[in-house]
Amino acid sequence: MKKKSKSGKSKKAASKQFALKRTTAKSKKVADLKYIPWLLQRQLIVGHEIMLARVLLKKGCIVPLHSHINEQLSYILEGALKFFIDGKEIVVRSGQVLTIPPNMPHKAEALEDTVDLDIFHPPRADWLNRTDTYLKGK
Amino acid sequence: MKKKSKSGKSKKAASKQFALKRTTAKSKKVADLKYIPWLLQRQLIVGHEIMLARVLLKKGCIVPLHSHINEQLSYILEGALKFFIDGKEIVVRSGQVLTIPPNMPHKAEALEDTVDLDIFHPPRADWLNRTDTYLKGK
Repeated sequence: MKKKSKSGKSKKAASKQFALKRTTAKSKKVADLKYIPWLLQRQLIVGHEIMLARVLLKKGCIVPLHSHINEQLSYILEGALKFFIDGKEIVVRSGQVLTIPPNMPHKAEALEDTVDLDIFHPPRADWLNRTDTYLKGK
Repeated sequence: MKKKSKSGKSKKAASKQFALKRTTAKSKKVADLKYIPWLLQRQLIVGHEIMLARVLLKKGCIVPLHSHINEQLSYILEGALKFFIDGKEIVVRSGQVLTIPPNMPHKAEALEDTVDLDIFHPPRADWLNRTDTYLKGK
């Protein structure tokens, strides 16, 4: 006799109950050789006019030069980011803030493992619709 | 002979150089008896469309029920705030976020000594023009 769980279902039936279907995408693309160091992770909260991102950057991570129409405030929770902005190099450390006006080009380098809160107005459409190619492979 | 500093100025002259004038306000108001527990401190950064406030609330500090047209995100850096909002009690702890829609009445109580980052859009005019009477005496 088959061993049954408390609910009366067999283990096999119970496991089937939670088995997701169609979890593989149909694709004819050939697998590429890639090296992805995973130096950057993001968590997002999207409000109506504000977006809050908690960004983890491993030491050495470089966010390439870019600009956006969105106003940005960066609050460093842990670690240190060196910004290249407005012809200057500014190191922003734990508890410090950088305000970045709309359309001002900036680049950043993590001098240490860093946790950064980025606040944007309006929310970053490129982050939401995945057209933020400058961050690809980070 | 008077003792001179390296710059050649006397100590008295040097101290006068940095003496601020008109540091007392002319007022005929009578001094009141007041008890101010200083349970709340704020630091503000005012951007164009975003305001960032770092708020320190001592344990027991209560921010009375209020509402504002400004969208708000609260990120708790340290401690814990209990919010009374939308008919619910929500305890927000270190590393957690509450998003408060415009015009939604809310009250908060610091369950511990707390450091809170509040983000507003647009900037809080009542905080800037000092009409935020609901926080007076905190």
